[in-house]
Amino acid sequence: MNKKMILCILGKMLGIEGLLLLIPALVSMIYGERSATAFIATSMILFIIYILTGRKKIEGTGLYAKEGLVIVAFAWILWSVFGAIPFVLSGSIPNYVDALFETASGFTTTGSTLLNNIEDLPQGILFWRSFTHWIGGMGVLVFVLAFIPLTDKRSIHLMRAEVPGPSVDKLVPKVRSTAKILYGMYILLSVILTILLMFGGMPLFDSLIHMFGTAGTGGFSNKSASIAYYNSAYIEGVITVFMILFGINFNLFYLLLIKKFTAAFKNEELRAYLGIIAFATVAITLNILSIYQSPLKAFRAAIFQVASLITTTGYATADFDLWPQFSKCILFAVMFIGACAGSTGGGIKVSRLTLLLKTVTLEIKHILHPQSVGIVRLDKKKVDHEILHGVYVYFIAYIMIFITSILLISIENYDFSTTFSSVLTCLNNVGPGVGKVGPTSSFSDFSLFSKLVFCFDMLAGRLELFPFLVIFSPSMWKRKF
Amino acid sequence: MNKKMILCILGKMLGIEGLLLLIPALVSMIYGERSATAFIATSMILFIIYILTGRKKIEGTGLYAKEGLVIVAFAWILWSVFGAIPFVLSGSIPNYVDALFETASGFTTTGSTLLNNIEDLPQGILFWRSFTHWIGGMGVLVFVLAFIPLTDKRSIHLMRAEVPGPSVDKLVPKVRSTAKILYGMYILLSVILTILLMFGGMPLFDSLIHMFGTAGTGGFSNKSASIAYYNSAYIEGVITVFMILFGINFNLFYLLLIKKFTAAFKNEELRAYLGIIAFATVAITLNILSIYQSPLKAFRAAIFQVASLITTTGYATADFDLWPQFSKCILFAVMFIGACAGSTGGGIKVSRLTLLLKTVTLEIKHILHPQSVGIVRLDKKKVDHEILHGVYVYFIAYIMIFITSILLISIENYDFSTTFSSVLTCLNNVGPGVGKVGPTSSFSDFSLFSKLVFCFDMLAGRLELFPFLVIFSPSMWKRKF
Repeated sequence: MNKKMILCILGKMLGIEGLLLLIPALVSMIYGERSATAFIATSMILFIIYILTGRKKIEGTGLYAKEGLVIVAFAWILWSVFGAIPFVLSGSIPNYVDALFETASGFTTTGSTLLNNIEDLPQGILFWRSFTHWIGGMGVLVFVLAFIPLTDKRSIHLMRAEVPGPSVDKLVPKVRSTAKILYGMYILLSVILTILLMFGGMPLFDSLIHMFGTAGTGGFSNKSASIAYYNSAYIEGVITVFMILFGINFNLFYLLLIKKFTAAFKNEELRAYLGIIAFATVAITLNILSIYQSPLKAFRAAIFQVASLITTTGYATADFDLWPQFSKCILFAVMFIGACAGSTGGGIKVSRLTLLLKTVTLEIKHILHPQSVGIVRLDKKKVDHEILHGVYVYFIAYIMIFITSILLISIENYDFSTTFSSVLTCLNNVGPGVGKVGPTSSFSDFSLFSKLVFCFDMLAGRLELFPFLVIFSPSMWKRKF
Repeated sequence: MNKKMILCILGKMLGIEGLLLLIPALVSMIYGERSATAFIATSMILFIIYILTGRKKIEGTGLYAKEGLVIVAFAWILWSVFGAIPFVLSGSIPNYVDALFETASGFTTTGSTLLNNIEDLPQGILFWRSFTHWIGGMGVLVFVLAFIPLTDKRSIHLMRAEVPGPSVDKLVPKVRSTAKILYGMYILLSVILTILLMFGGMPLFDSLIHMFGTAGTGGFSNKSASIAYYNSAYIEGVITVFMILFGINFNLFYLLLIKKFTAAFKNEELRAYLGIIAFATVAITLNILSIYQSPLKAFRAAIFQVASLITTTGYATADFDLWPQFSKCILFAVMFIGACAGSTGGGIKVSRLTLLLKTVTLEIKHILHPQSVGIVRLDKKKVDHEILHGVYVYFIAYIMIFITSILLISIENYDFSTTFSSVLTCLNNVGPGVGKVGPTSSFSDFSLFSKLVFCFDMLAGRLELFPFLVIFSPSMWKRKF
């Protein structure tokens, strides 16, 4: 393994985080808050690290898949480790592990919080907390790829390791251009959303905060009551639509951009995703009718919560913990499924689920007609054996990590729905769960050990398990590299 | 599909069930109970069906895998459907769906019950209820295979479809002889267990009932308090050991029989199975120490409950619903894992779990050393690609059925741990869960719809999903056969 090159790339990445920290520093200064110094101090530390490690030109000719995974895993850990410092220095979150949890929850676009009185925090800190969603949504490394010159051979492995989904296609032949196009579309949608929110009477600062949370499918708000605070059908509607949009594969937006409309709308994953949203919304609307005064109110609550949880955003306009068990189980199911591959959302991903279901159907067909040759197709194209195998292994590893985490969290001795949903919500990067981690509560009561387990789950979930499993595997550290 | 042959085999099987029903009829007569007529009447119905359909000599040359699956699925459904009749006719369980649930729970060796006052039932009915465990444990069809003359070409598919585990080996070249050896060892162990229980002061009738429940890994008792009723360390110890024994692959007992000791003890699945039992017992003992007066009492409670739940028997000596969440989650995990392949126990099976974990480990190794060729081995032998694929597909189908069942049961609006554990316990053929289906409660409060879902889960779980998925798939019924 090319240790030098890995260190150098990581150094460059920390330098970029140092630059990004100057934005919340500026916000703090605008609001005349002392927290500005916390950002500037952290920024300085990162610049020193950059000067010591990241200034060399990158040498060596190739970058292998494993190096891509290792860089991605460490980049996310380091960004979280250093991104947590301003919370501690500013005194907003005095305990470092708590700050790490909040930062990892931000970057991984989970949106689970330890804070009970969000309104008390300085504006600069609130800005940084939500800004991490926006960076983490499209990817820390995809962001960097748009700036660091790397050969395609190197960068495709970084992108594959970071962009969610069973397979990653370059939109255009060059990876760097692909990264730029992705961020271009991301910025465009973000700007439109901000304007629409301001149009609904939301102040600029709040609009930015909720744009970050929606675009990154994160879910941090600057209000304890989340979106329910605004009590506006318009704002709810805008955020619902944009949550759903940010849960769609960005490749499809590119297809629209280059006017391949039919290809975009015929996409199987998109259809399945919209189908699941429609089904879940109708089922929940019917189930909660008796709680709400009118079918319209029930529908409004249902679609917002479904969109928020399937895209793994985690905003809430209703305390779904009070809903009947059937509605809660449907919400669990959509949290587990998650958004589309290549979007900013988390979860297993709709395309993986589609492939898994097709595999089972094919197996039944194969039993009935042993002579038939079974081919799994997606969008009418044959899916490679390797990709399918990857999906199976992903699913197996996912369930294993899920069960192990539940065992570790159960040591806390909370009720089963709290234990189960806290792991579900962290591993799928959603945000809220039910019970003690319901939409109106926080993760503050968990032990430090549990918080570290959650950090692992959030990062493992966001990076789709394998980068994390690789750096935690003993055989990674056995050999010299 | 050879419809005639399928009908003929099913007819023969119902005839055999008619014969088996004469045993509880005899028990009823010994106790001078009126329920004898219920058994004899059902027996008559079955003999008439046999005469109408099952008397022909079996023609045709082959039996394909799909026909094996279809026969197995229908055989189990029909045995449950007809086996439920005596409960209704005798008035013990007046509602037919309830009786069907109890019978399916019996044959599938689940042991979940709807009855709240077990002691009130006639002895003949109690005998039949538990006897179904004993027949279902080794397999309805394996039992029949030992009697019906079928060519090997035909019978291996029946055996594959019914005997649990990723692959089925014949012990000896002839399937019929294999079936006879399996039942021979089963009967031998059962007799030893009965004698040991009687030696501990248990009456003959109770000994037979608990032998049926232990050997079949079922869990029905003739006492509401289950094994706790006897309050005897000896009886608990004997049942603990025999539950663990009946959770072991019967092929290993055959290896002992033909004196291949090393091969038996080096078996990877056996080692993993015993390792999991040891780990779970130690973890739970430590976790419940504060509840019990002494470490020994805690250990005794822990090992009994672990052995009962990993083997999916479901006997209880303690209300583990009152234990801390960590212990409950470990018990959930062992219920999910289940016993060894080729045993009478249910669950995912230890060998499947081993193969799944090896696949994930291999994937990590492959990422780190892409040039290495990854081969999954079990007992030092390469595992066939087809078997591995079967394990993946099984696991995927299992999780899908699990999630779908939870959604359907959540309509009841019980708490999440009841909903989750009721599905877990039925799909894995365990018996008790936690909450409303805890070891001291019953399934009586569920709706008829939920009870049918549980019947599906129990049968699908016992037959390892695919026979059931096949007969419920639309493409099975589309074509003429």
